[in-house]
Parts: sequence; structure tokens; C-alpha cells
Amino acid sequence: MHTLLILSRLARDYHVLVESAHLPDLAITSASDPADATANAASFDLAFGEPALLRQVMPALAGVRWVQSTWAGVEPLLDPALRRDYILTNARGVFGAQMSEYVFAYLLARERKIFDKQASQAAGRWDTAPPTRLHGKHLGLLGVGTIGAALARTAKHFGMRVKGYTRQNEDSPDVDEYFHGPLADIAAAFASDLDYLVGVMPATTATRHVVDAAFLRALPPRAVFVNPGRGGIVDEAALAAALQDGRLAGAVLDVFETEPLPADHVFWRLPNVLITSHTAAFSAPPDIAPIFIDNYRRLLLGEPLQYRVDFERGY
Amino acid sequence: MHTLLILSRLARDYHVLVESAHLPDLAITSASDPADATANAASFDLAFGEPALLRQVMPALAGVRWVQSTWAGVEPLLDPALRRDYILTNARGVFGAQMSEYVFAYLLARERKIFDKQASQAAGRWDTAPPTRLHGKHLGLLGVGTIGAALARTAKHFGMRVKGYTRQNEDSPDVDEYFHGPLADIAAAFASDLDYLVGVMPATTATRHVVDAAFLRALPPRAVFVNPGRGGIVDEAALAAALQDGRLAGAVLDVFETEPLPADHVFWRLPNVLITSHTAAFSAPPDIAPIFIDNYRRLLLGEPLQYRVDFERGY
Repeated sequence: MHTLLILSRLARDYHVLVESAHLPDLAITSASDPADATANAASFDLAFGEPALLRQVMPALAGVRWVQSTWAGVEPLLDPALRRDYILTNARGVFGAQMSEYVFAYLLARERKIFDKQASQAAGRWDTAPPTRLHGKHLGLLGVGTIGAALARTAKHFGMRVKGYTRQNEDSPDVDEYFHGPLADIAAAFASDLDYLVGVMPATTATRHVVDAAFLRALPPRAVFVNPGRGGIVDEAALAAALQDGRLAGAVLDVFETEPLPADHVFWRLPNVLITSHTAAFSAPPDIAPIFIDNYRRLLLGEPLQYRVDFERGY
Repeated sequence: MHTLLILSRLARDYHVLVESAHLPDLAITSASDPADATANAASFDLAFGEPALLRQVMPALAGVRWVQSTWAGVEPLLDPALRRDYILTNARGVFGAQMSEYVFAYLLARERKIFDKQASQAAGRWDTAPPTRLHGKHLGLLGVGTIGAALARTAKHFGMRVKGYTRQNEDSPDVDEYFHGPLADIAAAFASDLDYLVGVMPATTATRHVVDAAFLRALPPRAVFVNPGRGGIVDEAALAAALQDGRLAGAVLDVFETEPLPADHVFWRLPNVLITSHTAAFSAPPDIAPIFIDNYRRLLLGEPLQYRVDFERGY
């Protein structure tokens, strides 16, 4: 018999979804507050939930062998002070469609000048300024995991050219050109002809502040940076300076080094920045529960679990 | 020898593009003003240009056998007072990608609440209101020609369900369900579960005011109407009433019965209307000139021309 702790703000939803799968040999306990999960904590061998909540009970979860994250990002569980003697799996393959709607909403909004058109309407002005087009423009992806691959597919649908920067994988057939190696070495080749740069890398020690002053200088002034991924990949001071100096046309920012974004942060007031307050993609229980259910079946069969995180690599 | 009149606001661009195709047996004259085209008007056997300009010289173009429109819509040339004893071809197949960028810019903007997010940013508010998704929503297309087919393809890319209303064609494989016959007869089945309705029908006597009070009542209150097609298909008073009464969630309007939209028109001031001032799609010479060039080659070979307009049907 396996004993599962579901620890999530949406614990009730997850409990119902996992229970309805009628998984064999599984006893389920669920809580939405870490304080309610410490009583018999040592008795659980499995856990499923949000990394930020699980982190708080990890020291007490002495018997856990496998943790399934409801999120893609697992940074809270990568703290070197925490144990790593268990299998950690994250959520993948379910955020691509949402991220694609987010990113292309803003790319198309820019091409179609929809904020300008709204302002013209408010002024009662018949504004025939022609739009521009995504078709033929260049998209650069920092990271091509399942989310980057989904973005690449949508970009190709709209006739864009796609460049992808990854550690080594070249899995997406929708990326026209791949770049690897230290970002500083390939920045000019990767970035100098981009219209849009999208950050969809995990936050790890290796990706910290990769979008720095030097990399930003490699982008053309027409480029727009969209970051629905992780705030830690950006040197925010360097980004703000590039935006203020007109060395970068704009930024659409969902994530930040500190969230909520502090009230006095310059990003709030830059006219070429759009802030979306960490809403680009949500972990919806109907999307995420099947990942746990599938992995649990694999566990019973002794098969490798899907989406295992490498603690050293960080994703 | 054929003699061609190019009559277009972009006459110079079209002249260069047609000339660079080195078409045999072709003498080219071009003008951007109808007044400059009347001198030897009777000598031209071919014409290529904007219907609104060509209309003004049609009485003088006594020898014309074929007219290629640079636009999709050819209403100015359908006036029953004008001659119809020539072959009229229009521009098709080149607007789908632009129209898709237009329509999905506004659909995604709505799902992602991008105007709300902008307002929150202006107020310095960390606004975590979750977006909604296109995925799973229902799109209804009034008309499935080449533009409708392009919209259907993008809709499927984003995981939408697509319903199409056409006279009889069922050419697009991306439409999940087709509807034919008088709109009044199928309005309930076609419209009652739509999230978005997009008008991409030609303006003809048969399509005049098909979006009327009765049809609007068949739409659910959550629906948004997008019209990048032709203003004449809409009973504007009925649409304004539905929007004011909350029987329709919103409208994105590019075309109107009278353009520019008169300054006192109620659409300017309805909070759930977005006006884009007839900018959804443009006839770009590099896209349109190849249609003339291909059709000229067909003419020389005695083959049927592409995209021939039926004067009675109106498209």
C-alpha cells in the first residue's frame, strides 16, 4: 500500500481527480495548508503538490520516495539545504498551449497596434494606420522544452522564422536554427536579427541572469522581449536600462525576481513595458492530475517515471 | 499585342512588378488617378487596379475584355448600371494570413484580458486575475472562402471547435460542422453555442443585413462578433441594440455601412465595441501582382482565368 500526501491550494480538486482514477493500493490524504500535513508526515511515501508548499514539509516527509510537482518550476525544492534522496518529477507538456495563447496574444497585439487603435477610438479618430505582420518576422526562443516547442509551432503557423537556444536538445522540428554553448559566444548570431525574444528557460544557477547587459546589446533596437518563464533569468536593472535608452523596443513581463513586483519598481512606469503579474499559465487540475496518475501507474509497473528532474541541472 | 491599364493608388509599384515579369506581347500604361486614364481609354483591352477607381473609367474602357481587381471585394464594379460584358477576376488566397493575424489578435486579446492588464499596470496593481483560453471555445464563420478557411486553420491550431456557414461549399477540412440554407432556418443550430462569430462573407444582395436582429438573438450573451469582412452584411442598428442591451458581449468592427464611420455613430462610444477603421487586411502589391501575372499567362494560353467573379452572385 502506498500513502500519498496531496498538498495544494487546490487539494480538493486534486483529491477528487486522483480518487476517481481508482488507482490500486493507494491511500490518499490531502491538505491545502502545510500546517495540516505535518501530523503523520513521516508515514507518506508519495507526495503531490505545489513546490512552495511541499518545501515547508519536506523535512518532516522522512519516508517520501517520490514527489510529483503540480508546477513546471521546482525551484523551492532545489534548495541545497533540502534532501534530494527521492525522485522528483515536474509537470510538463501541459503548459504549451496556454503559453502559446499568452505569447501570441502579445505578439499579435503589437503587430496589429491594438492599444493604438483603442486610443484612436477613444478620440473618435478613424485611424487607418496600417498594421504590421508576424509573417516573416524572427522569433528567438531562450529554451526549447515542451513550452518552447509549442511556441515554435505557433510561430511557424504564422509564418515566422524561429531560432532556438538550448543546452543541447534539438527536439522541435519547428525551430529553423539551433544555437548551443555559452550565450555570450553565440549572442550575435542568435540575437542580432530577432524581432521577438521569448524566455522559456528554467531558473537554475546556470541560467541566472543570462539576459544581461551584454546579451541585450546583441538584440536590435526593434526587438521586443517577452518573459513568461522565470524572473531569475533576467538582470532586471540591465533590462530597464535598455528599455529606457531605446536599445530595446519593448518588453512583456510576466515574471520577476521579486513577486509581486515591488510598488516602486521602474517596470511599472516604463511606457514600453507591459506587466501581466504572473498569469501566463496556470496549473489546472484536469491537466495536471493525469500526470500524477500516469506516473503512479508507471511506479507500480516498475517503469521509469516521466519528467524526472535532475537536482543538479535544476530541471 | 495586349494593352494594359494599371489604375491604382499604388500604380508605380504594380507597374514595376508587372514589368519585371517580362510578360510577352504586353504594353503597360499606369495611372494613380482616373482622370489621367481617360485619354486613350478605349485602346486598352486589359485593366488591373482598385475597383473604386476602375469604376470611374469603366464607361470609357470600351475595349476592355478582362479586369483584374487588386481587392477581394468588387462591389463598385457590380453596379447594374455598369457593363458586364467582360471577364472580372478578383484577388483571393492572399488575405487569409493577414486576416488570421487580425482576428486572432483580438480573440487572444479578449481571452488574455490584455486591456484589463494594461489598466491594472497603469494603477500599479499586481493583477493576478486568471485569463481564459481559446482552447475549447467555439468559433462560427459566416462564409468559408479562402479567408474563412485560413481562420478555420488557425482556430484548429488553438484547439477551437469551428462551425461554418456557406452557400454550399465544404472545402475547408478545418471546419468541424457546416451549415447551409437560409440563415434564419439554421440560426439556432449554428449560433447558439458560439463564443465568437466572424463575418467573412462577400457583400452581395443575398448577404445584405444577414446579421440582423433575429440572427443576433440566436447568439448567446457571451458571444463576441468580429467583422473584418464587409459592413453591408450587418444591420448596424440591430447590432448596436444587442450590444447596448447586453445580449451580445462585444464586437470588433473593421468595416461599416458608411466609411469612415460617421463621428456621431453610437459604435464609437459603446464600451464593448472595438473599432479598427478598415485596416484588417491590405492589398500588398507583392502579393497581388502575381495574381495578375499568372492570369495573364493563362489568358495567352487560352486557359480559364483564376478567381473569376460571377456578376449575378457578386463574388
